[in-house]
Amino acid sequence: MASTSPEPAAAGETNDPIHIRRLELSDHERGFVALLSQLSACPDLTASEFATRFAELAAQGDDHVILVAEDPSASDRRILATGCLFVERKFLRGGGKVGHVEDVVVDAAARGRGLGLRVVRRLVEIARDAGCYKVILDCTPELRAYYARCGFVEKGVQMAVYF
Amino acid sequence: MASTSPEPAAAGETNDPIHIRRLELSDHERGFVALLSQLSACPDLTASEFATRFAELAAQGDDHVILVAEDPSASDRRILATGCLFVERKFLRGGGKVGHVEDVVVDAAARGRGLGLRVVRRLVEIARDAGCYKVILDCTPELRAYYARCGFVEKGVQMAVYF
Repeated sequence: MASTSPEPAAAGETNDPIHIRRLELSDHERGFVALLSQLSACPDLTASEFATRFAELAAQGDDHVILVAEDPSASDRRILATGCLFVERKFLRGGGKVGHVEDVVVDAAARGRGLGLRVVRRLVEIARDAGCYKVILDCTPELRAYYARCGFVEKGVQMAVYF
Repeated sequence: MASTSPEPAAAGETNDPIHIRRLELSDHERGFVALLSQLSACPDLTASEFATRFAELAAQGDDHVILVAEDPSASDRRILATGCLFVERKFLRGGGKVGHVEDVVVDAAARGRGLGLRVVRRLVEIARDAGCYKVILDCTPELRAYYARCGFVEKGVQMAVYF
């Protein structure tokens, strides 16, 4: 599931001091994993485990982008929102590329400020700039209207097998 | 969209002489791109373009698997069906992995023989063996029952932005 816990509404986006940037290794200390636990089962990772996964994903370069939102003026600089984009390369569409948005979540205490929308819109821009012909995500039916505000339209159903 | 054109029904799977194997570079000459065109817009690729994309995907090792179905006894050994699996590495679920099934298609003249189901079931096995905690795909509502035969259950809606 791409995203089940962004904030329900956006407001005051324009003057929000929150900074949207790419994930950094030091974000492990800023509650990044705890934030993901608001979306899905997410046991904490040791610093070593986090660094290993971070390096694996960083090796994908611009084909794998995790954005985070932080308040630079906050003393602990905890991560308030995040979203991920990865680029899939295909043979169809003339060797086309598709952007996949995953793991969008906004901290429960920071919802209603449009942080999730800012993250998702930036991910869509990155995908477009990377030459993707489309961006897709899966969500619960309740979030259709939310993602419609980022330009998404419903295209199909998501199916899953859990092991 | 993961898959809109597999065959509607499976029959005679057990004694089917069709061989399921990984995509090879030489499959460009066996109609692989033409087969994909039954799923989505798919202009042909030059041998060089095909080889470049093939190499990019091969560099991902077992994180990107394309299976094809062929009849080894056929004179032209044309590709009859295909499906793709790629593995996404996450921070959540203890640094878990998710398998994504994409681009499942069966040649119109080869439908009804269960080739698509064989391909998808094998992709699910590969994902499970790779340690994925789930496999997901997007499809049209009409294909829900088809993928249910491979163990998939409906989980959400697919949203998309087209550029």
